[in-house]
Amino acid sequence: MTHRPGDEAYALIERLYPICRSITGNGVRQTLAILGEHIPIDVTEVPSGTKVLDWVVPDEWNIEDAYLADPSGRRLVDFRRSNLHIVNYSEPVRARMSLEELRPRLHTLPDRPELVPYRTSYYERTWGFCLSARALDSVGAGPFDVVVDTTLEPGELTYGELAIPGETDDEVLFTTHVCHPSIANDNLSGIVVAIELARALAALPGRRFSYRFVFAPGTIGSITWLSRNRRLLDHIRHGLVLTGLGGPGRLVYQRTRRGDRAIDRAAAPPVTRRGGEVRDYSPYGYDERQFNAIGFDLPVGRLSRTPHGEYPEYHTSADDLGFVRDEELLEAYAALLQVVEVLEHDAAYVNLSPHGEPQLGKRGLYPTTGGKSASDAVMAMLWTLGYSDGRATLLDIADRADLDFAQVCRAAADLTRAGLLERARGGPGSSVS
Amino acid sequence: MTHRPGDEAYALIERLYPICRSITGNGVRQTLAILGEHIPIDVTEVPSGTKVLDWVVPDEWNIEDAYLADPSGRRLVDFRRSNLHIVNYSEPVRARMSLEELRPRLHTLPDRPELVPYRTSYYERTWGFCLSARALDSVGAGPFDVVVDTTLEPGELTYGELAIPGETDDEVLFTTHVCHPSIANDNLSGIVVAIELARALAALPGRRFSYRFVFAPGTIGSITWLSRNRRLLDHIRHGLVLTGLGGPGRLVYQRTRRGDRAIDRAAAPPVTRRGGEVRDYSPYGYDERQFNAIGFDLPVGRLSRTPHGEYPEYHTSADDLGFVRDEELLEAYAALLQVVEVLEHDAAYVNLSPHGEPQLGKRGLYPTTGGKSASDAVMAMLWTLGYSDGRATLLDIADRADLDFAQVCRAAADLTRAGLLERARGGPGSSVS
Amino acid sequence: MTHRPGDEAYALIERLYPICRSITGNGVRQTLAILGEHIPIDVTEVPSGTKVLDWVVPDEWNIEDAYLADPSGRRLVDFRRSNLHIVNYSEPVRARMSLEELRPRLHTLPDRPELVPYRTSYYERTWGFCLSARALDSVGAGPFDVVVDTTLEPGELTYGELAIPGETDDEVLFTTHVCHPSIANDNLSGIVVAIELARALAALPGRRFSYRFVFAPGTIGSITWLSRNRRLLDHIRHGLVLTGLGGPGRLVYQRTRRGDRAIDRAAAPPVTRRGGEVRDYSPYGYDERQFNAIGFDLPVGRLSRTPHGEYPEYHTSADDLGFVRDEELLEAYAALLQVVEVLEHDAAYVNLSPHGEPQLGKRGLYPTTGGKSASDAVMAMLWTLGYSDGRATLLDIADRADLDFAQVCRAAADLTRAGLLERARGGPGSSVS
Repeated sequence: MTHRPGDEAYALIERLYPICRSITGNGVRQTLAILGEHIPIDVTEVPSGTKVLDWVVPDEWNIEDAYLADPSGRRLVDFRRSNLHIVNYSEPVRARMSLEELRPRLHTLPDRPELVPYRTSYYERTWGFCLSARALDSVGAGPFDVVVDTTLEPGELTYGELAIPGETDDEVLFTTHVCHPSIANDNLSGIVVAIELARALAALPGRRFSYRFVFAPGTIGSITWLSRNRRLLDHIRHGLVLTGLGGPGRLVYQRTRRGDRAIDRAAAPPVTRRGGEVRDYSPYGYDERQFNAIGFDLPVGRLSRTPHGEYPEYHTSADDLGFVRDEELLEAYAALLQVVEVLEHDAAYVNLSPHGEPQLGKRGLYPTTGGKSASDAVMAMLWTLGYSDGRATLLDIADRADLDFAQVCRAAADLTRAGLLERARGGPGSSVS
Repeated sequence: MTHRPGDEAYALIERLYPICRSITGNGVRQTLAILGEHIPIDVTEVPSGTKVLDWVVPDEWNIEDAYLADPSGRRLVDFRRSNLHIVNYSEPVRARMSLEELRPRLHTLPDRPELVPYRTSYYERTWGFCLSARALDSVGAGPFDVVVDTTLEPGELTYGELAIPGETDDEVLFTTHVCHPSIANDNLSGIVVAIELARALAALPGRRFSYRFVFAPGTIGSITWLSRNRRLLDHIRHGLVLTGLGGPGRLVYQRTRRGDRAIDRAAAPPVTRRGGEVRDYSPYGYDERQFNAIGFDLPVGRLSRTPHGEYPEYHTSADDLGFVRDEELLEAYAALLQVVEVLEHDAAYVNLSPHGEPQLGKRGLYPTTGGKSASDAVMAMLWTLGYSDGRATLLDIADRADLDFAQVCRAAADLTRAGLLERARGGPGSSVS
Repeated sequence: MTHRPGDEAYALIERLYPICRSITGNGVRQTLAILGEHIPIDVTEVPSGTKVLDWVVPDEWNIEDAYLADPSGRRLVDFRRSNLHIVNYSEPVRARMSLEELRPRLHTLPDRPELVPYRTSYYERTWGFCLSARALDSVGAGPFDVVVDTTLEPGELTYGELAIPGETDDEVLFTTHVCHPSIANDNLSGIVVAIELARALAALPGRRFSYRFVFAPGTIGSITWLSRNRRLLDHIRHGLVLTGLGGPGRLVYQRTRRGDRAIDRAAAPPVTRRGGEVRDYSPYGYDERQFNAIGFDLPVGRLSRTPHGEYPEYHTSADDLGFVRDEELLEAYAALLQVVEVLEHDAAYVNLSPHGEPQLGKRGLYPTTGGKSASDAVMAMLWTLGYSDGRATLLDIADRADLDFAQVCRAAADLTRAGLLERARGGPGSSVS
């Protein structure tokens, strides 16, 4: 990889941040167009009204402007200052109202009076404004000029996709939601890490797996994608939802619904060895709930940092550009590369000199002066020889030995070169395929 | 349930407390007669000398009076002040003895000098008195008039039983020992909780299980009941020994001997979610050791608070009316109702909309304004949909989700009404039946 | 056993300590000759150049003298003061060198400046001296007279062996390495404990197992033994490497490679019930790595105290006579006798009175006065009756009950005598055989 991913990731977040995205509309189109400058993205448009699984593609929403103004025309709450001020999917309005009439339409966070909440109403027609509790205190009694200049009409739902072919048509799926407006960690962070990962994978020679990246609006987007790609699903061997990767806290891997899939084994060490956490599936979260639903039962885990709802800035105006950090994005990216390394390279091997320990010294693999402790490289070889019985895979061995997968992978390569190890028969033969 | 169980439970303990019970005799008969005023109890009398399993029903013991008196006739140790003063099952005696002669017959607790111990000698003919170490210090050197006015002759062993029929003849067994004299926690507490539970179950409409309550003397009573009900045993699906439920400490569920029976699954959450403890089987304790014996292997757990031998008042005069508390009895009762709720209602369900998450909002089951966290009710529905694959039961799901069984049960009912869930085929179909 | 093992064990260590052992040569011969005064040892000599598995028996090394002297003839580093001063297996040298020329040949421990390291070079011809960092500071700039008076020529590798026949030819193998020079804990401690254990086993009447003790140089010795005893290996049911048993810290049992062998079950309680630790296999250590290698897959665990590399005195001059203690050797010995007790006596039994609890009192096995807690002996009987279903063995029951194996063994004997228990059919019938 010739560029430093952190260099561009944060810049891309800055560029995407101002756009007012939603589950449909021009915000998503504009976002996918920008992503398309980095990787070749196929864009799909699905008409409103299309039946998708148990759902229906809703009307398309677009927004021009929205504000509350006092009689002098001064904008008290203004979409143009922050697209969080409008309840996402608000229907068009033009009215003059008192504070009393308006109040049920105004959303605040009384316990965090400086912050503007993020609210949506995709499936019930309504409208509303979001503002800080502090701002609400100072708007006065009205009357207010209310303007919501939106359209909510039959149109399309838009999602983007990138397929990177590999040696087999077994696929690894990465998905990320693209429907939140000016919220940085949730989920511009996931989008830009996915872009960097896609670039790295496209450049990876001799890929065993094909890789697919889906950039879709949350819930309805993944449901639409699932409903249109039923034949593809049989090829998905592993998957990850990427979200909230630039915010605070350690990495958190959430297991698949069943919790014992190969991706669960593969994704845990890169997270835990960085001090991160592995937790069981919960059916409330991001699009993993669609992929893992019983009828599909796809092995899709989720990588994030501190998950949704567990940090106070979640779904508020405080999840802004200052909330995500380059180092966090880079750490997530590095962990993902290690997950891919396991998926690509894990396999079972056979020890070809199984009667006692082979003499590594005469093959130049062992220090000649005895009496000291063994190096990490020697330990990795001893573990690999000690457990390569044709069934245990390198990941099994790394887990057992508490070594990085990469170390065991290197030991297996060295031992294979020395004629002491060979890959077990039986196809590509990985415990994680 | 129209009466508050705590109202009557403690009053019943007060009424039963003065009676001098033993493993046979009028104390048990009188106790069962009083219980019969609350629920209809069948009383069985089994003649002395009857062979029951490896044991023989012993002679019947009854007591009129017992005391040690000084030469002036002043009673120094007096059965009429506490029936713990006489070693239970003492044979009749009338003698004059010095302290020296008496001493091997006198039982005290030197390390707890204020307390009178509870001692028995059912299977070896002897006699003795129990008194506090303090009292022993002050009795003087004698001589003493020793009177033990008991009878120990062929008679009957008495136990009581209540069967509450349900839709099936699969049975749930509750047992409690009725052989201790004036000891409140061990086991008037278990008796009165059983009475309240029996009343509640008799009033429960559409019971899936039949319920059986056995009120029997410890060890020999349950052995006698087992020996006379061999054909019944095949119907017992779950069982609980109830004992020590009004004393101090948290609830303690002791698993069945095998430890992996359905009752072990069902009884754990009502206990642990109240801060209680679940522990493995130990072969020393109450009648669970008879039911769990290898030859019967019945799935009978035990519910208590701090178990026998683990509190200093155990088997002493300090386990008195002041030692049991209404709130503790009520908590135990509430936990038992929840165990029954699981036994009655646990079942596997099938998600009828398994491809992706069904749109709960259009069915009125989901809040329409997005962006906030999910409510408990929504979470319970998502967990239920997420794991109802026709094999996992509601209890499995509640355990996994760390939710109350009742919440998941309610979610299943709501989803079933909405046409999103149905009970899995295959009989009453519960993992715990 | 009529002698106190600790009496002689430490004396034997003192006698063996001065000898300069290596993987071949007269040091091993002299050591085995001394051991032969205690138990009858068969000595095997295998010629240099013999192919053994992946290895070749090396030339034989013997040493007469070695030193660095200043021009006046004063010995600055002197093999005769400590045989650790010479790199073990150094080839012969006679030269005059400056400090600069010598420096690459001098081994020190800069972070522990008072200690002399132990270094070897068995498989690459070289020579060198080991000295304390402090001594190196004061040797001056030279020139030095360098004398290494060794021979390194075709000869033999020597190992010793003792077979103690039992009722079956199922074998238990104990091995210990005999190749370290003046290092007390590693492994004179293992050698002397093995000697004491062998004496005890030879005196044990009615041994179910045959026992084999192998005293061999590390790595090449066990590899040579394995290559020459392939037919024997099928008889090995359990094995233990004994090493580092007199040093500091608690007992540590390292499991076999697979970790679920009978010896792993049997060896754990004697260690953990003494506050010791049980840990998983690691492929770096002592000769267990040869026995456990995939091709042999022998169930050989390892008993030590704090293992190699985990105490600062390891492989230095500080592992001297003052470093091992009699009490530690005795504790290890006692634990080993308990392991043997399990191997010899564990078996499954059948409860012959399985319907309810048998009446122990009428058989004199139960206290007649009721109301008190059960004794340990009664508890052991109740556990044994409670779980003797013909499958669970006494060790299973002891583990479950958290009792000493010996207690459960005694309970089984008492119950068998009382006609309440019998050994399960099917051969010698032990879960650990």
